This record gives sequence, C-alpha cells and structure tokens, in this order.
Amino acid sequence: MRIDGLQYANWSEKIFRQLREGGVDAIHVTIAYHESFRETVLNFEKWNRWFEQFPDLIMKGRWARDIDVARETGRTAVFFGFQNPSPIEDDIGLVEVLHDLGARFMQLTYNNQSLLATGCYESYDAGITRMGKQVIKEMNRVGLVVDMSHSGDRSTIEAAELSERPIAITHANPHDWAPALRNKRDAVIRAVTERGGMLGFSLYPHHLKGKSDCTLESFCEMIARAADSYGAEHLGIGSDLCQDQPDSVVEWMRVGRWSKEIDYGEGSASLPGFPPMPGWFRDNRDFGNLENGLRATGLNADEVAGIMGQNWYRFFERNFTPQQAGGMTGGT
Amino acid sequence: MRIDGLQYANWSEKIFRQLREGGVDAIHVTIAYHESFRETVLNFEKWNRWFEQFPDLIMKGRWARDIDVARETGRTAVFFGFQNPSPIEDDIGLVEVLHDLGARFMQLTYNNQSLLATGCYESYDAGITRMGKQVIKEMNRVGLVVDMSHSGDRSTIEAAELSERPIAITHANPHDWAPALRNKRDAVIRAVTERGGMLGFSLYPHHLKGKSDCTLESFCEMIARAADSYGAEHLGIGSDLCQDQPDSVVEWMRVGRWSKEIDYGEGSASLPGFPPMPGWFRDNRDFGNLENGLRATGLNADEVAGIMGQNWYRFFERNFTPQQAGGMTGGT
Repeated sequence: MRIDGLQYANWSEKIFRQLREGGVDAIHVTIAYHESFRETVLNFEKWNRWFEQFPDLIMKGRWARDIDVARETGRTAVFFGFQNPSPIEDDIGLVEVLHDLGARFMQLTYNNQSLLATGCYESYDAGITRMGKQVIKEMNRVGLVVDMSHSGDRSTIEAAELSERPIAITHANPHDWAPALRNKRDAVIRAVTERGGMLGFSLYPHHLKGKSDCTLESFCEMIARAADSYGAEHLGIGSDLCQDQPDSVVEWMRVGRWSKEIDYGEGSASLPGFPPMPGWFRDNRDFGNLENGLRATGLNADEVAGIMGQNWYRFFERNFTPQQAGGMTGGT
Repeated sequence: MRIDGLQYANWSEKIFRQLREGGVDAIHVTIAYHESFRETVLNFEKWNRWFEQFPDLIMKGRWARDIDVARETGRTAVFFGFQNPSPIEDDIGLVEVLHDLGARFMQLTYNNQSLLATGCYESYDAGITRMGKQVIKEMNRVGLVVDMSHSGDRSTIEAAELSERPIAITHANPHDWAPALRNKRDAVIRAVTERGGMLGFSLYPHHLKGKSDCTLESFCEMIARAADSYGAEHLGIGSDLCQDQPDSVVEWMRVGRWSKEIDYGEGSASLPGFPPMPGWFRDNRDFGNLENGLRATGLNADEVAGIMGQNWYRFFERNFTPQQAGGMTGGT
C-alpha cells in the first residue's frame, strides 16, 4: 500500500496516470492556500469534474475504507486538505460544513499568523489563539485533522497538547538533518508523535539536505534514524510534490493576497520558482525507488510497509470519522 | 413508520419533542426559499448546531438507512431540501456540492420563473429551460430529487419526462378536490406518478377543501380517491407544516428579494399571514389522527402504512444515492 501525505500538482490526466504507474493508492491533496470558503468550494467542484472525467484513474476519498475500494478497482483515492484555515474564514461552523464536503486535513497556519495560530515565518510565536482552541476542539469533533506543517514550534507543540486526537505534520523533515526553517526540531516532532501523531517526510528540495542534489541514501538514512527516535509507526511520506506548477503558483502559495511585495519563502530572488526534484524522485512513478531505498537502510519489511502507506491508512481510519458517532452514519 | 415529505417550522426544542410525540421518524425540511449558496450554507450550519444541541431528539438524515438508525435510537431523521434552485445560483457544479452537504430535494421553481423552469404563478409556462435540462441530468447523477411542488403544469410534466429518475411533488393536493393554483391537475399528477414519482399531500389550509375548516374525513377520502387513480404506493404526506412562523417569514417565502411590492401568494390582503391549521392536524403530534382517518376510508393496512411513511422510505432509498455508484462509498 502506498499513500502520499501531501501533494499539490498541476493536475492532469498525465499525472493521474503516473499515480497509477507508481502504485499510489491514496494521496492527500491541497485545495486551498489562501482561498476563502467560496473559492474553496470552486476547488471542490474542479475535483468533482476530474472524478467524473477520469473515473478509471481516481476517486474521491472520504474514509480510510475508500482506499480499499481504490485498491480493488485500480484507482487512486484523493483526500482533500487546506494549508491554511482561510476556508473557514471566521466561522467555526464551516469546519463541519467543509468536513461534509470532504476536507480531512487543515493546517492552522501557512507561514504567517492566522486567526488560529502562528506560522513558522513569524518572528514571534504566541501559540494557539482563543479561536484556535475552539477550532481544534471542533476539528476533533468532526474528524478534520490538525496539520502543523507550516506552523511555529510553540504553536505546534501547543496544538499537539490541546488536541484530543492525534495531529499531523504532513510534509516536513527533521531540522537536524536539513536546517530549513520549515523543517521540524526534535521537541516538535516528539510532541506530535508521542501523542499518536504522524510525520510525513517531504521531498520538496528546499526541505532536503543538499536540496536537489540530496541522495536517496541520505534521505532514507534520515528516515531510519527518525524511526529509531520516534517509532516507525508514526512516520509516512508527504512528498509535497508540486509537479508541473508554473512559477505563478509558487507565488500564490507564498504571497496570496496578504502582501504586495514578493516573499520568496524558502526560495530566493535568484531561485524564485520551484527547484528541480532529485533524480530518484521525479514524480509519482518513483515511489518504488523510495521503497527500495528504505529497505536498503535495514528497516524491516513491516516498518517499510508502514512508512510507505499503512501508517497513514491507520491514521486516516482513526481520525477522519466524527468523534461522537451517534447517528452520523456517513462516517461510520 | 411515519415520514413527512415537507415541513418548514420555526424550529425549537418544543417542535423537536412534538416530532417524537407524534412518532415521526423522518422529515424533509426546507432550508432555502430564496437564499444564495452562501446563505444556504449558514442554514446548514444552523441545523448542525441543533443536531449537536438535541442529539437525543434529532439527527441528520443523508440516506434512507439513517431512518433505521433514527428509529432504533428514538429520534427523528431530518433531510434537507430547497424550494427554489437559488442555492445553486448559475453554477451546475453546486448541485453535487450541495448534495455532499446533505441536500436531497430541490424545487426547480418557487412560484416564479427560475433559471431552470416556470413557477405556477407565472402567466405563461415555457417549460424546462436549457440550463434546466442540464441541471435535471446532474440532479439525477448525484441523487438530488427534482421537486415540482411550486412549478407550472407544463414545466412539471416536462421535468417528469426528462428526468431519468422519478421526481416528486412533495406538498400539494389534487386540483379537482381543492382548486388552488398550487394544487395539481390530474395530468400533472399522472405524469409524475406513472414514472415512479411521489405526491405528498399538503395540510397547508390554502391547499385544503374548505381551508382551515376542512374535515379529516374529506382529506382522507381525497387520499383514498387518489390511491384509486394513481396507486397508493406513489402517495405520502407532505404536510407543509409552517408551525410557529411569524408573518414576516411568510413574506420572505413569497417575496424574497425579487419584488418591492407585497405578493400575497395563496393568501390575500385581508389574510396575509399563515392561516390556522385544521383542528385535527395542529402539529406533529397529530399524525395518529391522519393514520386513523386513512384507516377509516377503507384503505388496507399496507396502503395506509405506505402513505404514512413506507412509500417515502422506499423513494428515499432509491433516489438519494449517486447514479453511478463506482467508488462513491459515502452514498452506498
């Protein structure tokens, strides 16, 4: 079983076919960076069209059991998430509405301060806000997973502590392996994984040691060390694959409508766009390379199978359904 | 089993308790008359709050099987619908989005011309529009039932013919029993029921012979005659109960934002508000009276059970799930 904990490609039939070639059973895809509720609805609609157009390649994922259906029918189940809480605007009631529409992950911040928490690019992290505490409780209730990939350390640790259900860092790597601002320090990963949460390893070159030149061996050794430190069962892949996106999209991701000035995020004025992927992970066809690389580190077969997909599967199974199942048959 | 095919009360704990007292297992409730998509979302949110506040009395209904859950747990399953297509605005993609949120019925018109069809108060009925044909197809695909309660004759007959799945008139009576503009002529009822569709009998006094003074006997005799004409299996109740609504709401229903002048609809300048209900059907506690009244007409036990709820149950079971079940496990 192969599950990718985060992708944001410029979707096309080509990529849907590559998902099948790579044997990817499920992906969590980003459908909002800075979108309002209404704009996010249009992104759900866009995916609904793709599900209709490519019924043999992809299907909408709502529950872990949809991954079983996808496997039985040779398709990829697509689960939705947001990298910012902008889709809920200032209305806690939209948490349940968006979960009903299929949202399964929501980051409390994307780099900046949000209404809920502090992003990893702010100079001071004041932790989870008043509204943030309410929204975490509501996300727990309906089954929308708290994702802290782009949040500050303090906010992330507080979210892990406040949340009654495990949270996730869907796409980041350990900071001590590659000291990018977006990568996570030991205490942060520990706070998440100790409480049943998940860390998805990113293949976005800015998160890699040596960036685009990172070797498969270095990446897999890093994962093997993380398995020693945090337990292999809390680890997965969250490739952050942004395949075929034009540079205008990286600009939308980084700047949205919040600034008139360019913010280069993890890039720079000289490298403003998406950096090239490492040769051993060009796109979804290369999940086999990851699996082979993990095996070569000495991780056992169960650990490798867990990291490649079964850990995400179990996490989806436990965390997407409403907390109080009474009568909510849609999810149970 | 008791199912009401349409209500629009001013919801409160009192009414939820009366639903339980009346043994009502499921209701279809209106959550939009003239609301935009965004406004309709707020109405879904309002219900989500009630489901949280009154978990022992009510639960959200998505599929027919939720009625089984409601019965097992002593609650009423609440299904959602719109009396106008205003929630989809001019965007066919919103049909699936709203079905995902739980919409199960949508009228193609509310009295006036809409983007889809002609309302029963227009002077000329031009039938189903170009967009209307597309939307009917999409409603069929996702499992959103076409409701023609407030549509013109030609539009209703065309909708019944165009729709690949049975349609409904959730709340109206035969025109030859009570010649209100909203009641339905024989050819219209026939077009709907011949194709597996349903007629829900209304208890709104303007739709009754003798209005508020209508007798239980007259009402039930009318149903028994309709069973002879159209087959008892196509009949149900759609009480149109508007309990506890202030007159300002009847004005919103009739005028929305489409006119600055008062339109009295089925009322008049001298009787602008909601007329009093007949004494034998004050509210949800009186479903037993209906059942007794139907038995007294000579309809057999199966026919009465069908009209009181089982016919709607079977209709819900067949028509709320997506047409192509492939991978859509939410509905299957």
